[in-house]
Amino acid sequence: MASEASAAIARVRALLFDVFGTCVDWRTSVIAEGEAFGRAHGLRGVDWAGFADAWRGRYQPQMETVRTGRRPWTTLDDLHRESLDAVLREVGVTGVSPADLDELSRAWHRLDPWPDTVEGLSRLKTRYVIAPNSNGNVALLVDMAKRGGMPWDAILGAEIARCYKPMPDAYLRNVEILGLTPPQVMMVAAHNGDLAAAAACGLRTGFVPRPAEHGPGQTSDLKPERTYDVVAADLVDLARQMGC
Amino acid sequence: MASEASAAIARVRALLFDVFGTCVDWRTSVIAEGEAFGRAHGLRGVDWAGFADAWRGRYQPQMETVRTGRRPWTTLDDLHRESLDAVLREVGVTGVSPADLDELSRAWHRLDPWPDTVEGLSRLKTRYVIAPNSNGNVALLVDMAKRGGMPWDAILGAEIARCYKPMPDAYLRNVEILGLTPPQVMMVAAHNGDLAAAAACGLRTGFVPRPAEHGPGQTSDLKPERTYDVVAADLVDLARQMGC
Repeated sequence: MASEASAAIARVRALLFDVFGTCVDWRTSVIAEGEAFGRAHGLRGVDWAGFADAWRGRYQPQMETVRTGRRPWTTLDDLHRESLDAVLREVGVTGVSPADLDELSRAWHRLDPWPDTVEGLSRLKTRYVIAPNSNGNVALLVDMAKRGGMPWDAILGAEIARCYKPMPDAYLRNVEILGLTPPQVMMVAAHNGDLAAAAACGLRTGFVPRPAEHGPGQTSDLKPERTYDVVAADLVDLARQMGC
Repeated sequence: MASEASAAIARVRALLFDVFGTCVDWRTSVIAEGEAFGRAHGLRGVDWAGFADAWRGRYQPQMETVRTGRRPWTTLDDLHRESLDAVLREVGVTGVSPADLDELSRAWHRLDPWPDTVEGLSRLKTRYVIAPNSNGNVALLVDMAKRGGMPWDAILGAEIARCYKPMPDAYLRNVEILGLTPPQVMMVAAHNGDLAAAAACGLRTGFVPRPAEHGPGQTSDLKPERTYDVVAADLVDLARQMGC
Protein backbone atom coordinates (compact mmCIF):
# COMPACT_ATOMS: atom_id res chain seq x y z
CA MET A 1 0.00 0.00 0.00
CA ALA A 2 1.43 3.39 -0.96
CA SER A 3 2.07 5.80 1.91
CA GLU A 4 -0.50 8.25 0.50
CA ALA A 5 -3.14 5.51 0.66
CA SER A 6 -2.04 4.61 4.20
CA ALA A 7 -2.42 8.21 5.32
CA ALA A 8 -5.91 8.36 3.81
CA ILE A 9 -6.90 5.15 5.56
CA ALA A 10 -5.46 6.33 8.88
CA ARG A 11 -8.07 9.12 8.92
CA VAL A 12 -11.00 6.71 8.57
CA ARG A 13 -13.21 6.51 11.68
CA ALA A 14 -16.29 4.71 10.34
CA LEU A 15 -17.13 2.15 7.68
CA LEU A 16 -20.49 2.15 5.91
CA PHE A 17 -21.50 -1.10 4.21
CA ASP A 18 -23.67 -1.97 1.30
CA VAL A 19 -25.72 -4.95 2.52
CA PHE A 20 -27.56 -6.80 -0.31
CA GLY A 21 -24.79 -8.74 -2.05
CA THR A 22 -21.92 -7.29 -0.02
CA CYS A 23 -22.81 -8.57 3.48
CA VAL A 24 -25.60 -11.05 2.71
CA ASP A 25 -26.26 -13.63 0.00
CA TRP A 26 -29.73 -12.42 -1.00
CA ARG A 27 -30.12 -14.74 -4.01
CA THR A 28 -29.51 -18.06 -2.25
CA SER A 29 -31.66 -16.90 0.67
CA VAL A 30 -34.61 -15.77 -1.48
CA ILE A 31 -34.46 -19.00 -3.52
CA ALA A 32 -34.60 -21.00 -0.26
CA GLU A 33 -37.52 -18.89 0.97
CA GLY A 34 -39.34 -19.52 -2.33
CA GLU A 35 -38.72 -23.26 -2.11
CA ALA A 36 -40.05 -23.36 1.46
CA PHE A 37 -43.09 -21.34 0.37
CA GLY A 38 -43.62 -23.78 -2.53
CA ARG A 39 -43.47 -26.81 -0.23
CA ALA A 40 -45.89 -25.18 2.24
CA HIS A 41 -48.37 -24.46 -0.56
CA GLY A 42 -47.91 -27.70 -2.51
CA LEU A 43 -46.48 -25.95 -5.59
CA ARG A 44 -44.35 -27.95 -8.04
CA GLY A 45 -42.07 -27.06 -10.90
CA VAL A 46 -41.68 -23.40 -9.98
CA ASP A 47 -38.42 -21.74 -11.08
CA TRP A 48 -37.50 -20.15 -7.75
CA ALA A 49 -34.14 -18.90 -9.03
CA GLY A 50 -36.01 -17.11 -11.79
CA PHE A 51 -38.39 -15.78 -9.15
CA ALA A 52 -35.51 -14.40 -7.03
CA ASP A 53 -33.88 -12.75 -10.04
CA ALA A 54 -37.16 -11.28 -11.30
CA TRP A 55 -37.98 -9.86 -7.84
CA ARG A 56 -34.56 -8.31 -7.51
CA GLY A 57 -34.84 -7.10 -11.11
CA ARG A 58 -37.75 -4.85 -10.15
CA TYR A 59 -35.66 -3.16 -7.45
CA GLN A 60 -33.79 -0.53 -9.46
CA PRO A 61 -36.74 0.57 -11.64
CA GLN A 62 -38.93 0.89 -8.51
CA MET A 63 -36.35 2.97 -6.63
CA GLU A 64 -35.90 5.12 -9.71
CA THR A 65 -39.52 6.26 -9.39
CA VAL A 66 -38.64 7.55 -5.90
CA ARG A 67 -35.26 9.01 -6.89
CA THR A 68 -36.81 11.01 -9.69
CA GLY A 69 -39.60 12.32 -7.46
CA ARG A 70 -42.35 10.59 -9.45
CA ARG A 71 -43.56 9.16 -6.14
CA PRO A 72 -42.97 10.21 -2.52
CA TRP A 73 -40.56 8.43 -0.18
CA THR A 74 -41.45 4.72 -0.07
CA THR A 75 -39.58 2.08 1.96
CA LEU A 76 -37.99 -0.95 0.37
CA ASP A 77 -40.38 -3.16 2.37
CA ASP A 78 -43.27 -1.49 0.60
CA LEU A 79 -41.55 -1.75 -2.80
CA HIS A 80 -40.85 -5.47 -2.27
CA ARG A 81 -44.44 -6.15 -1.24
CA GLU A 82 -45.81 -4.11 -4.11
CA SER A 83 -43.93 -6.08 -6.78
CA LEU A 84 -44.41 -9.55 -5.28
CA ASP A 85 -47.80 -10.28 -6.81
CA ALA A 86 -46.57 -9.60 -10.34
CA VAL A 87 -43.33 -11.51 -9.83
CA LEU A 88 -45.20 -14.59 -8.58
CA ARG A 89 -47.51 -14.41 -11.60
CA GLU A 90 -44.42 -14.42 -13.86
CA VAL A 91 -43.44 -17.83 -12.46
CA GLY A 92 -47.01 -19.11 -12.62
CA VAL A 93 -48.07 -18.71 -8.98
CA THR A 94 -51.46 -17.09 -8.37
CA GLY A 95 -54.20 -17.03 -5.74
CA VAL A 96 -51.93 -16.45 -2.73
CA SER A 97 -53.59 -14.77 0.27
CA PRO A 98 -52.50 -11.25 1.31
CA ALA A 99 -51.25 -12.61 4.65
CA ASP A 100 -49.07 -15.19 2.89
CA LEU A 101 -47.78 -12.51 0.51
CA ASP A 102 -46.87 -10.33 3.52
CA GLU A 103 -44.96 -13.20 5.08
CA LEU A 104 -43.10 -14.11 1.87
CA SER A 105 -42.26 -10.44 1.31
CA ARG A 106 -40.44 -10.47 4.62
CA ALA A 107 -37.99 -12.98 3.10
CA TRP A 108 -35.76 -9.92 2.64
CA HIS A 109 -35.56 -9.60 6.45
CA ARG A 110 -34.15 -13.14 6.67
CA LEU A 111 -31.15 -13.08 4.33
CA ASP A 112 -28.08 -15.06 5.41
CA PRO A 113 -24.67 -13.38 5.79
CA TRP A 114 -21.78 -14.63 3.65
CA PRO A 115 -19.52 -16.95 5.68
CA ASP A 116 -16.91 -14.21 6.35
CA THR A 117 -19.35 -11.39 7.19
CA VAL A 118 -19.89 -11.77 10.94
CA GLU A 119 -16.20 -12.34 11.71
CA GLY A 120 -15.13 -9.47 9.46
CA LEU A 121 -17.63 -7.01 10.94
CA SER A 122 -16.85 -8.10 14.51
CA ARG A 123 -13.15 -7.43 13.96
CA LEU A 124 -13.75 -4.09 12.23
CA LYS A 125 -16.06 -3.02 15.07
CA THR A 126 -13.16 -3.16 17.55
CA ARG A 127 -11.56 -0.16 15.84
CA TYR A 128 -14.20 1.58 13.72
CA VAL A 129 -17.83 2.57 13.88
CA ILE A 130 -19.62 0.14 11.54
CA ALA A 131 -23.07 0.67 10.08
CA PRO A 132 -25.04 -0.44 7.04
CA ASN A 133 -25.64 2.14 4.34
CA SER A 134 -28.22 0.11 2.49
CA ASN A 135 -31.30 0.87 0.45
CA GLY A 136 -33.07 -1.50 2.85
CA ASN A 137 -35.22 0.14 5.51
CA VAL A 138 -34.34 0.14 9.21
CA ALA A 139 -36.80 -2.59 10.28
CA LEU A 140 -35.50 -4.90 7.55
CA LEU A 141 -31.87 -4.27 8.51
CA VAL A 142 -32.53 -4.71 12.25
CA ASP A 143 -34.31 -8.03 11.73
CA MET A 144 -31.56 -9.25 9.41
CA ALA A 145 -28.81 -8.21 11.82
CA LYS A 146 -30.42 -9.86 14.84
CA ARG A 147 -31.08 -13.09 12.96
CA GLY A 148 -27.64 -13.24 11.33
CA GLY A 149 -25.55 -11.82 14.17
CA MET A 150 -24.26 -8.75 12.34
CA PRO A 151 -22.99 -6.48 15.14
CA TRP A 152 -23.74 -3.01 13.75
CA ASP A 153 -23.03 0.06 15.90
CA ALA A 154 -25.95 1.89 14.27
CA ILE A 155 -28.49 1.26 11.51
CA LEU A 156 -28.11 3.89 8.82
CA GLY A 157 -29.07 3.95 5.16
CA ALA A 158 -31.60 5.22 2.68
CA GLU A 159 -34.50 5.45 5.12
CA ILE A 160 -32.47 7.65 7.46
CA ALA A 161 -31.44 9.90 4.57
CA ARG A 162 -34.87 9.50 2.93
CA CYS A 163 -32.95 9.12 -0.31
CA TYR A 164 -31.89 6.02 -2.27
CA LYS A 165 -28.31 5.30 -3.31
CA PRO A 166 -26.60 6.32 -5.52
CA MET A 167 -27.97 9.84 -4.93
CA PRO A 168 -25.32 11.98 -3.16
CA ASP A 169 -27.47 12.63 -0.08
CA ALA A 170 -27.68 8.88 0.53
CA TYR A 171 -23.96 9.07 1.37
CA LEU A 172 -23.56 12.61 2.66
CA ARG A 173 -26.50 12.63 5.05
CA ASN A 174 -25.33 9.39 6.70
CA VAL A 175 -21.79 10.77 7.05
CA GLU A 176 -23.21 13.92 8.66
CA ILE A 177 -25.32 11.91 11.12
CA LEU A 178 -22.15 10.14 12.24
CA GLY A 179 -20.67 13.57 13.03
CA LEU A 180 -17.88 12.94 10.52
CA THR A 181 -16.59 14.30 7.22
CA PRO A 182 -16.52 12.24 3.98
CA PRO A 183 -12.77 11.45 4.15
CA GLN A 184 -13.33 9.98 7.63
CA VAL A 185 -15.79 7.41 6.26
CA MET A 186 -15.17 4.42 3.99
CA MET A 187 -17.99 2.99 1.89
CA VAL A 188 -17.58 -0.78 1.48
CA ALA A 189 -19.40 -2.52 -1.37
CA ALA A 190 -19.27 -5.32 -3.91
CA HIS A 191 -20.59 -2.95 -6.58
CA ASN A 192 -18.50 -0.56 -8.65
CA GLY A 193 -21.43 1.83 -9.15
CA ASP A 194 -22.04 2.26 -5.42
CA LEU A 195 -18.36 3.00 -4.80
CA ALA A 196 -18.09 5.42 -7.74
CA ALA A 197 -20.97 7.42 -6.25
CA ALA A 198 -19.43 7.34 -2.76
CA ALA A 199 -16.04 8.43 -4.11
CA ALA A 200 -17.68 11.33 -5.95
CA CYS A 201 -18.96 12.49 -2.54
CA GLY A 202 -15.44 12.35 -1.07
CA LEU A 203 -15.74 9.11 0.89
CA ARG A 204 -12.99 6.53 1.00
CA THR A 205 -13.79 3.26 -0.79
CA GLY A 206 -13.35 -0.47 -0.13
CA PHE A 207 -14.20 -3.04 -2.81
CA VAL A 208 -15.02 -6.62 -1.86
CA PRO A 209 -15.96 -8.74 -4.89
CA ARG A 210 -18.88 -11.15 -4.51
CA PRO A 211 -18.65 -13.16 -7.75
CA ALA A 212 -21.49 -15.51 -6.72
CA GLU A 213 -24.00 -12.79 -5.79
CA HIS A 214 -25.98 -13.26 -9.01
CA GLY A 215 -25.41 -17.02 -9.25
CA PRO A 216 -23.18 -19.06 -11.56
CA GLY A 217 -23.62 -16.81 -14.62
CA GLN A 218 -22.60 -13.51 -13.02
CA THR A 219 -20.94 -11.10 -15.44
CA SER A 220 -20.97 -7.79 -13.50
CA ASP A 221 -18.77 -6.50 -10.69
CA LEU A 222 -16.35 -9.42 -10.95
CA LYS A 223 -13.47 -7.05 -10.34
CA PRO A 224 -12.66 -3.46 -9.44
CA GLU A 225 -13.30 -1.14 -12.38
CA ARG A 226 -11.49 1.85 -10.90
CA THR A 227 -8.97 2.61 -8.16
CA TYR A 228 -10.21 2.10 -4.61
CA ASP A 229 -8.50 2.79 -1.31
CA VAL A 230 -8.74 -0.91 -0.44
CA VAL A 231 -9.56 -4.01 -2.47
CA ALA A 232 -10.12 -7.05 -0.25
CA ALA A 233 -10.93 -10.71 -0.92
CA ASP A 234 -13.71 -10.69 1.70
CA LEU A 235 -14.65 -8.87 4.92
CA VAL A 236 -12.10 -10.78 7.03
CA ASP A 237 -9.39 -9.70 4.61
CA LEU A 238 -10.75 -6.14 4.78
CA ALA A 239 -10.44 -6.24 8.58
CA ARG A 240 -6.85 -7.42 8.28
CA GLN A 241 -5.99 -4.66 5.79
CA MET A 242 -7.67 -2.08 8.06
CA GLY A 243 -5.48 -3.13 10.99
CA CYS A 244 -8.04 -5.21 12.90
CA MET B 1 -49.20 -8.91 37.29
CA ALA B 2 -52.83 -8.86 36.10
CA SER B 3 -53.64 -10.96 33.05
CA GLU B 4 -54.59 -7.84 31.08
CA ALA B 5 -51.14 -6.39 31.73
CA SER B 6 -49.52 -9.71 30.77
CA ALA B 7 -51.40 -9.76 27.47
CA ALA B 8 -50.30 -6.19 26.73
CA ILE B 9 -46.68 -7.05 27.46
CA ALA B 10 -46.85 -10.22 25.36
CA ARG B 11 -47.43 -8.01 22.28
CA VAL B 12 -44.27 -5.96 22.86
CA ARG B 13 -41.57 -6.52 20.21
CA ALA B 14 -39.21 -3.60 20.88
CA LEU B 15 -38.08 -1.47 23.81
CA LEU B 16 -37.06 2.16 23.36
CA PHE B 17 -34.94 3.67 26.13
CA ASP B 18 -34.44 7.10 27.46
CA VAL B 19 -30.67 7.39 27.89
CA PHE B 20 -29.60 10.42 30.00
CA GLY B 21 -30.45 9.39 33.54
CA THR B 22 -32.14 6.10 32.63
CA CYS B 23 -29.19 4.22 31.09
CA VAL B 24 -26.25 6.45 32.01
CA ASP B 25 -25.23 8.47 35.06
CA TRP B 26 -24.71 11.79 33.29
CA ARG B 27 -24.16 13.85 36.45
CA THR B 28 -21.31 11.82 37.98
CA SER B 29 -19.70 11.52 34.54
CA VAL B 30 -19.88 15.24 33.72
CA ILE B 31 -18.53 16.15 37.19
CA ALA B 32 -15.58 13.77 36.59
CA GLU B 33 -15.00 15.31 33.14
CA GLY B 34 -15.03 18.79 34.71
CA GLU B 35 -12.58 17.73 37.41
CA ALA B 36 -10.21 16.25 34.82
CA PHE B 37 -10.52 19.42 32.75
CA GLY B 38 -9.75 21.49 35.87
CA ARG B 39 -6.64 19.44 36.66
CA ALA B 40 -5.43 19.70 33.05
CA HIS B 41 -5.85 23.49 33.09
CA GLY B 42 -4.62 24.12 36.66
CA LEU B 43 -8.02 25.36 37.87
CA ARG B 44 -8.80 25.28 41.61
CA GLY B 45 -11.94 25.70 43.67
CA VAL B 46 -14.37 25.22 40.79
CA ASP B 47 -17.81 23.82 41.72
CA TRP B 48 -17.96 21.08 39.09
CA ALA B 49 -21.22 19.67 40.46
CA GLY B 50 -22.74 23.14 40.02
CA PHE B 51 -21.23 23.19 36.53
CA ALA B 52 -22.83 19.84 35.62
CA ASP B 53 -26.23 20.91 36.95
CA ALA B 54 -26.10 24.30 35.24
CA TRP B 55 -25.12 22.73 31.91
CA ARG B 56 -27.94 20.20 32.14
CA GLY B 57 -30.26 23.00 33.28
CA ARG B 58 -29.88 24.71 29.91
CA TYR B 59 -31.02 21.58 28.10
CA GLN B 60 -34.81 21.89 28.29
CA PRO B 61 -34.97 25.64 27.50
CA GLN B 62 -32.64 25.13 24.52
CA MET B 63 -34.69 22.25 23.13
CA GLU B 64 -37.82 24.28 23.65
CA THR B 65 -36.57 26.82 21.09
CA VAL B 66 -36.42 23.95 18.57
CA ARG B 67 -39.73 22.35 19.63
CA THR B 68 -41.57 25.64 19.18
CA GLY B 69 -40.03 26.26 15.77
CA ARG B 70 -38.20 29.41 16.91
CA ARG B 71 -35.07 27.82 15.45
CA PRO B 72 -34.53 25.06 12.88
CA TRP B 73 -33.51 21.51 13.79
CA THR B 74 -30.32 21.65 15.87
CA THR B 75 -28.51 18.61 17.32
CA LEU B 76 -27.89 18.18 21.01
CA ASP B 77 -24.14 18.26 20.32
CA ASP B 78 -24.59 21.77 18.93
CA LEU B 79 -26.82 22.82 21.84
CA HIS B 80 -24.29 21.50 24.39
CA ARG B 81 -21.42 23.29 22.67
CA GLU B 82 -23.40 26.50 22.34
CA SER B 83 -24.19 26.73 26.07
CA LEU B 84 -20.78 25.61 27.36
CA ASP B 85 -19.11 29.03 27.27
CA ALA B 86 -21.82 30.64 29.40
CA VAL B 87 -21.97 27.72 31.84
CA LEU B 88 -18.20 27.84 32.39
CA ARG B 89 -18.42 31.59 33.01
CA GLU B 90 -21.06 30.93 35.68
CA VAL B 91 -18.53 28.84 37.65
CA GLY B 92 -15.75 31.37 37.05
CA VAL B 93 -13.87 29.71 34.19
CA THR B 94 -12.95 31.93 31.23
CA GLY B 95 -10.35 32.11 28.46
CA VAL B 96 -10.66 28.50 27.29
CA SER B 97 -9.64 27.85 23.67
CA PRO B 98 -12.31 26.77 21.15
CA ALA B 99 -10.51 23.42 20.68
CA ASP B 100 -10.61 22.75 24.43
CA LEU B 101 -14.29 23.76 24.55
CA ASP B 102 -14.99 21.31 21.71
CA GLU B 103 -13.28 18.52 23.61
CA LEU B 104 -15.04 19.29 26.91
CA SER B 105 -18.37 19.50 25.11
CA ARG B 106 -17.87 15.92 23.98
CA ALA B 107 -18.03 14.90 27.66
CA TRP B 108 -21.64 13.98 26.81
CA HIS B 109 -20.29 11.25 24.47
CA ARG B 110 -18.42 9.67 27.38
CA LEU B 111 -21.09 9.10 30.02
CA ASP B 112 -20.85 5.91 32.09
CA PRO B 113 -23.71 3.40 32.21
CA TRP B 114 -25.32 2.63 35.57
CA PRO B 115 -23.96 -0.68 36.98
CA ASP B 116 -27.04 -2.67 35.87
CA THR B 117 -27.39 -1.16 32.38
CA VAL B 118 -25.17 -3.39 30.22
CA GLU B 119 -26.39 -6.63 31.79
CA GLY B 120 -30.03 -5.53 31.61
CA LEU B 121 -29.79 -4.45 27.96
CA SER B 122 -27.86 -7.57 26.97
CA ARG B 123 -30.56 -9.78 28.46
CA LEU B 124 -33.41 -7.77 26.91
CA LYS B 125 -31.69 -7.93 23.51
CA THR B 126 -32.06 -11.71 23.43
CA ARG B 127 -35.84 -11.36 23.08
CA TYR B 128 -36.60 -7.79 21.97
CA VAL B 129 -35.28 -5.15 19.61
CA ILE B 130 -33.61 -2.56 21.84
CA ALA B 131 -32.78 1.00 20.82
CA PRO B 132 -32.27 4.36 22.47
CA ASN B 133 -35.00 6.93 22.01
CA SER B 134 -32.96 9.82 23.34
CA ASN B 135 -32.76 13.51 22.67
CA GLY B 136 -29.04 12.89 22.12
CA ASN B 137 -27.90 12.80 18.50
CA VAL B 138 -26.75 9.64 16.73
CA ALA B 139 -22.99 10.35 16.89
CA LEU B 140 -23.22 11.00 20.64
CA LEU B 141 -25.20 7.81 21.24
CA VAL B 142 -22.88 5.69 19.07
CA ASP B 143 -19.77 6.94 20.87
CA MET B 144 -21.40 6.39 24.28
CA ALA B 145 -22.55 2.87 23.37
CA LYS B 146 -19.16 1.78 22.02
CA ARG B 147 -17.32 3.15 25.04
CA GLY B 148 -19.77 1.77 27.60
CA GLY B 149 -20.65 -1.50 25.89
CA MET B 150 -24.36 -0.82 25.42
CA PRO B 151 -25.45 -3.38 22.79
CA TRP B 152 -28.17 -1.48 20.90
CA ASP B 153 -29.80 -3.09 17.86
CA ALA B 154 -30.28 0.34 16.28
CA ILE B 155 -29.67 3.98 17.19
CA LEU B 156 -32.94 5.86 17.12
CA GLY B 157 -34.08 9.07 18.80
CA ALA B 158 -34.74 12.73 18.26
CA GLU B 159 -32.27 13.18 15.40
CA ILE B 160 -33.92 10.37 13.41
CA ALA B 161 -37.36 11.88 14.03
CA ARG B 162 -35.96 15.44 13.74
CA CYS B 163 -38.15 16.20 16.73
CA TYR B 164 -37.35 16.41 20.46
CA LYS B 165 -39.21 14.47 23.14
CA PRO B 166 -41.83 14.85 24.48
CA MET B 167 -43.37 15.86 21.12
CA PRO B 168 -45.55 13.00 19.78
CA ASP B 169 -43.51 12.53 16.60
CA ALA B 170 -40.43 11.81 18.73
CA TYR B 171 -42.19 8.57 19.74
CA LEU B 172 -44.39 7.82 16.74
CA ARG B 173 -41.76 8.32 14.07
CA ASN B 174 -39.33 5.96 15.82
CA VAL B 175 -42.07 3.33 16.23
CA GLU B 176 -42.87 3.64 12.52
CA ILE B 177 -39.20 3.23 11.54
CA LEU B 178 -39.13 -0.04 13.49
CA GLY B 179 -42.03 -1.22 11.34
CA LEU B 180 -44.19 -1.60 14.46
CA THR B 181 -47.33 -0.11 15.99
CA PRO B 182 -47.32 1.80 19.33
CA PRO B 183 -48.68 -1.12 21.42
CA GLN B 184 -45.79 -3.25 20.14
CA VAL B 185 -43.23 -0.85 21.62
CA MET B 186 -42.40 -0.10 25.25
CA MET B 187 -40.78 3.19 26.23
CA VAL B 188 -38.47 2.74 29.23
CA ALA B 189 -37.50 5.79 31.27
CA ALA B 190 -36.68 7.09 34.72
CA HIS B 191 -38.86 10.14 34.06
CA ASN B 192 -42.61 10.35 34.55
CA GLY B 193 -42.98 13.07 31.94
CA ASP B 194 -41.31 11.02 29.20
CA LEU B 195 -43.55 8.03 29.95
CA ALA B 196 -46.72 10.13 30.11
CA ALA B 197 -45.96 11.43 26.61
CA ALA B 198 -45.19 7.93 25.32
CA ALA B 199 -48.40 6.53 26.85
CA ALA B 200 -50.41 9.32 25.22
CA CYS B 201 -49.05 8.05 21.87
CA GLY B 202 -50.19 4.50 22.66
CA LEU B 203 -46.83 2.98 23.61
CA ARG B 204 -46.40 0.61 26.51
CA THR B 205 -44.41 2.03 29.43
CA GLY B 206 -41.68 0.83 31.80
CA PHE B 207 -40.56 2.96 34.74
CA VAL B 208 -37.11 2.47 36.27
CA PRO B 209 -36.43 4.98 39.07
CA ARG B 210 -32.98 6.52 39.21
CA PRO B 211 -33.09 8.33 42.56
CA ALA B 212 -29.41 9.38 42.34
CA GLU B 213 -29.61 10.89 38.84
CA HIS B 214 -29.62 14.45 40.17
CA GLY B 215 -27.33 13.77 43.12
CA PRO B 216 -28.08 13.50 46.84
CA GLY B 217 -30.82 16.15 46.91
CA GLN B 218 -33.04 14.73 44.17
CA THR B 219 -36.74 15.48 44.65
CA SER B 220 -38.23 14.58 41.24
CA ASP B 221 -39.08 11.22 39.68
CA LEU B 222 -38.41 9.31 42.89
CA LYS B 223 -41.39 7.09 42.20
CA PRO B 224 -44.03 6.32 39.56
CA GLU B 225 -46.63 9.07 39.40
CA ARG B 226 -49.10 7.12 37.31
CA THR B 227 -49.80 3.52 36.30
CA TYR B 228 -47.21 1.92 34.04
CA ASP B 229 -47.16 -1.49 32.39
CA VAL B 230 -43.98 -2.33 34.31
CA VAL B 231 -42.19 -0.73 37.25
CA ALA B 232 -38.73 -2.20 37.78
CA ALA B 233 -35.96 -1.60 40.32
CA ASP B 234 -33.33 -1.39 37.57
CA LEU B 235 -32.71 -2.70 34.05
CA VAL B 236 -31.77 -6.20 35.23
CA ASP B 237 -35.07 -6.38 37.10
CA LEU B 238 -36.83 -5.08 33.97
CA ALA B 239 -35.24 -7.91 31.97
CA ARG B 240 -36.46 -10.43 34.52
CA GLN B 241 -39.99 -9.02 34.45
CA MET B 242 -39.98 -9.06 30.64
CA GLY B 243 -39.10 -12.75 30.61
CA CYS B 244 -35.37 -12.46 29.79
